[in-house]
Amino acid sequence: MKRAQEKGLLEVHVHHLRQWAVNEYGQVDDYQYGGGAGMVMMCEPLAKAIEALSADRQYDEIIYLTPDGETLNQKISNTLSLKQTLLLICGHYKGIDERIREHFVTREISIGDYVLSGGELAAAVLVDSIGRLLPGVLNDETSALFDSFQDNLLAPPVYTRPEDFRGWKVPAILMSGDHKKIEEWRHEQSLQRTQERRPDLPDQL
Amino acid sequence: MKRAQEKGLLEVHVHHLRQWAVNEYGQVDDYQYGGGAGMVMMCEPLAKAIEALSADRQYDEIIYLTPDGETLNQKISNTLSLKQTLLLICGHYKGIDERIREHFVTREISIGDYVLSGGELAAAVLVDSIGRLLPGVLNDETSALFDSFQDNLLAPPVYTRPEDFRGWKVPAILMSGDHKKIEEWRHEQSLQRTQERRPDLPDQL
Repeated sequence: MKRAQEKGLLEVHVHHLRQWAVNEYGQVDDYQYGGGAGMVMMCEPLAKAIEALSADRQYDEIIYLTPDGETLNQKISNTLSLKQTLLLICGHYKGIDERIREHFVTREISIGDYVLSGGELAAAVLVDSIGRLLPGVLNDETSALFDSFQDNLLAPPVYTRPEDFRGWKVPAILMSGDHKKIEEWRHEQSLQRTQERRPDLPDQL
Repeated sequence: MKRAQEKGLLEVHVHHLRQWAVNEYGQVDDYQYGGGAGMVMMCEPLAKAIEALSADRQYDEIIYLTPDGETLNQKISNTLSLKQTLLLICGHYKGIDERIREHFVTREISIGDYVLSGGELAAAVLVDSIGRLLPGVLNDETSALFDSFQDNLLAPPVYTRPEDFRGWKVPAILMSGDHKKIEEWRHEQSLQRTQERRPDLPDQL
């Protein structure tokens, strides 16, 4: 991502919510109505932040990273990589006030069925998964076209030198020089691995 | 995670693979056997790294972060939070030589069905999701017990001050002071949100 930014292919701007805090103490969260453990991020700083940033730049999506959002997958990353500008909101504590979700957020995304201490890592994951799909970010050597998920299959096993490592050998087919057979073997391995590990995958994506 | 480390509740050590490189150029990857785009991380640096680190510390699991691993969820994070020491391997490019996976790795984990430019963010996500479950890391205010997924349900919506923001009001029930009714409302909201957004969830976890 750093190289993508250096090449001018991607811009990432980080904004600290405290600059839109409700008072001089930098407050951006408060106790939740109805009681119970955990703070909630307040409407006003978020609304002000979204409005201030939207005045500078038209956003294609205002995305809230949250465990109860739509689960990220490669298809969503592909779709989002075609957008020009995204505003990502990182939650903390118990999350953000529901009214911001209802009135400002256009899409809610979860990176998986687990809880993190904040939305920052989730946002970084989203930026990375989208950013590497932008034209010019990856070279042919690392082309995203052959990755797991791009064809609804897991990638086949890979091997590099040495041919024999502590008695563990590279499959002979890979040394055969027969590219057609190698491609067949790889496709077979992809199918088999997907069937063994992720029988749900071909239907999901 | 920084505070957890400062409190002595969690230790995170980052090791650079290049210190176990195969030559003076710091080489740790090579072209893949059978041809095709993308480099593969070599056996020798990884085997040496795992052996050197295992000599210093007994690892409960040697985990490879990879898109074709078992999909991380809160249940796996809960389980891993009971372990003492984990060695996390971050892949790059097309991944690591399959022989390391077969002979050294004890568990393979994916943080989701999307591809990242490397395993580092995935490792950070795993550490964060596990770390916050360690006793003493979260205080009561942020207790993990009420998070999404811990009871196979998504969390209910949350609200904080002001009660009326631009005409958008907090649900009256939350202002009632009737804790029993509030808990019922929250449970109902959790059920409804889970049913609407993630009908698959109660069966999965």
